[in-house]
Amino acid sequence: MHEDLLRSIRSVPDFPKKGIVFRDITTLLKDPVAFTRAADILVDRYKDAGIEKVVSVESRGYILGAVLAYRLHAGFVPVRKPGKLPAQTIREEYKLEYGSDAVEVHTDALRKGERVLLHDDLLATGGTIEATCKLVERLGGVIAGVSFLIELRFLKGRDRLQAYDVFSILKYDTE
Amino acid sequence: MHEDLLRSIRSVPDFPKKGIVFRDITTLLKDPVAFTRAADILVDRYKDAGIEKVVSVESRGYILGAVLAYRLHAGFVPVRKPGKLPAQTIREEYKLEYGSDAVEVHTDALRKGERVLLHDDLLATGGTIEATCKLVERLGGVIAGVSFLIELRFLKGRDRLQAYDVFSILKYDTE
Repeated sequence: MHEDLLRSIRSVPDFPKKGIVFRDITTLLKDPVAFTRAADILVDRYKDAGIEKVVSVESRGYILGAVLAYRLHAGFVPVRKPGKLPAQTIREEYKLEYGSDAVEVHTDALRKGERVLLHDDLLATGGTIEATCKLVERLGGVIAGVSFLIELRFLKGRDRLQAYDVFSILKYDTE
Repeated sequence: MHEDLLRSIRSVPDFPKKGIVFRDITTLLKDPVAFTRAADILVDRYKDAGIEKVVSVESRGYILGAVLAYRLHAGFVPVRKPGKLPAQTIREEYKLEYGSDAVEVHTDALRKGERVLLHDDLLATGGTIEATCKLVERLGGVIAGVSFLIELRFLKGRDRLQAYDVFSILKYDTE
């Protein structure tokens, strides 16, 4: 299970709050060998999937998402928090532990029927990525894959994405 | 001056507030030909510069910054807004038109003497990138270049970066 990449992740206890172990990808990103390997694993998986757009979630998702778009000769579409995108957008709200949040995308970001790969760095409870899938489908995009660098399996985010082909490079079974 | 790329930028009047013309790069990013061209112009410029780390500013800066790191076989270092990075950080504050803001980087993001390329999507007044340069130098990094997709020349951000080799792909002389 890519032990070398797993070792390049830093685990930070009690961040962002007590009891949470934060999986810090900056130690992987700063290592050119690990960074290249992670990107190439994703590229290899999707290189024959006919991907036309890579849609990524602000902000860490942009990092490997942009490399994926570049290597797959696809366009790159940023999904952002409300109010950041300047032209006409659509919005999806999603629930958090306390309260709610939302994501937006430009209405002209995709053409109907385009094959889309979604990417984010982390699959936790899956709220953000589920909302992002809805945005893509409202624009007529066909979700060809949903990819993550890290999946926290014990949070069961994959259960919310059963309609899609979901792939993660690194999996944590326990906190 | 890369007329094809310039045409792929969308100008949005009165965003984020009245009187400002926002240069929207999402229309360039979603076009695989323009996205690849922009990335390759930067790669060609720095491919023999011995870059060991690409340092980028949250969040649009991550997009081309990550592709640059990948293509230059360099590590990628994200600079973030306060409180987002989980391990030990250093911080630089900078002034805005009203009030101030700050950026942070992990203290172990760079080794002393490493050759660093900075990247952000936009050079406006230059406050954020100047603060980012200070972060890099406090960690002992050697700034080999500072690069942008777009430069708003009339805001004179380049004047604050005179110590560095500054490059931008697209330049706007007037709003």
